[in-house]
Amino acid sequence: MADGAASRRSRFTPEREAVLYAAVFDLLCEVGYDSLTMDAVATRTRTSKATLYRQWGGKAELVVGALRHAKPGSVAGVDTGSLRSDLYGLLLNEDDSAREQRSALMRGLAVATHRFPDLGQAFRELIVDPEMDDFRRVLRRAVDRGEVSADNPALDYVAHMLIGAFAACVLVYDQPPTHAFLHSYLDAVVLPVLGV
Amino acid sequence: MADGAASRRSRFTPEREAVLYAAVFDLLCEVGYDSLTMDAVATRTRTSKATLYRQWGGKAELVVGALRHAKPGSVAGVDTGSLRSDLYGLLLNEDDSAREQRSALMRGLAVATHRFPDLGQAFRELIVDPEMDDFRRVLRRAVDRGEVSADNPALDYVAHMLIGAFAACVLVYDQPPTHAFLHSYLDAVVLPVLGV
Repeated sequence: MADGAASRRSRFTPEREAVLYAAVFDLLCEVGYDSLTMDAVATRTRTSKATLYRQWGGKAELVVGALRHAKPGSVAGVDTGSLRSDLYGLLLNEDDSAREQRSALMRGLAVATHRFPDLGQAFRELIVDPEMDDFRRVLRRAVDRGEVSADNPALDYVAHMLIGAFAACVLVYDQPPTHAFLHSYLDAVVLPVLGV
Repeated sequence: MADGAASRRSRFTPEREAVLYAAVFDLLCEVGYDSLTMDAVATRTRTSKATLYRQWGGKAELVVGALRHAKPGSVAGVDTGSLRSDLYGLLLNEDDSAREQRSALMRGLAVATHRFPDLGQAFRELIVDPEMDDFRRVLRRAVDRGEVSADNPALDYVAHMLIGAFAACVLVYDQPPTHAFLHSYLDAVVLPVLGV
């Protein structure tokens, strides 16, 4: 459905589009997909609703555009030479606001990705799958260096352990994980189970 | 706020109340808190909206009542004599529908517990905290038996690992964890990191 939006001739400059997508992303994190309205987007961005509908067609297309635009910091560039410092780099160098935004996004999309399969598919294709691929590359390099045994069964679950730490903090304790929590979790769980 | 509901004289038999709470719980899992309406509850349970409001006061009170009533299967009764079989028992003996309902609840409450602090507090007090306490008892027994070292730092994160496995499956892959997944996750991650 994002292709439909892309094929329409844009009435926005790239800068204006970036501002608009950022507002949509913020609203998504604040109120969730269900409660996000075109009215709220229009008000916050001082854009007419008619313009929004003409450009994007609807809420789903607008949110997919915002997801596509958000592209969280890439894992791929991290390559420090050891798994421990790769994982520290990935999780601990992210600043608090990035971590809070990631947590809020997860919360904001939790119901919607299930109820609206197109949105769920876009979320997985644009956000989840690229991150998983990058993570697999980080782990593959650790195996190639001999840091982790290639047949360690926990290799398949590193993403679950990490996503899980975020999700448990967000869903159960209603707060994004702190820097100290993530450091301790890596040292107590993720690295030991990988034999590092 | 649930106390307010409890102190009102009930117009429902316990059986009728159980049916009503079950319907609220199902709706919560299906559409999430935001989209759950008193209209939908009234329609599904063939009750007048006026009666619902008279008895519970509002949506938040009704949902808290349903959460309180749902009481997921207690962890406390499980005591097989080994941590491995305690954890297998806890996670693998749950049938598919109970697992799906737990997943759906997590999804349905994800945004709401953040946006509505009273609801979040009720969720933590009624569902999360009792389960965490029970889990701590299971782990404490394993330490007392000498199965797990008392200073293993992963002891603090067993709940995160398990909640995380659920949440990652639900939020990221949009499906509750399968029996095979949970078995494999326990064997590959949770038990090894505890040294079992």
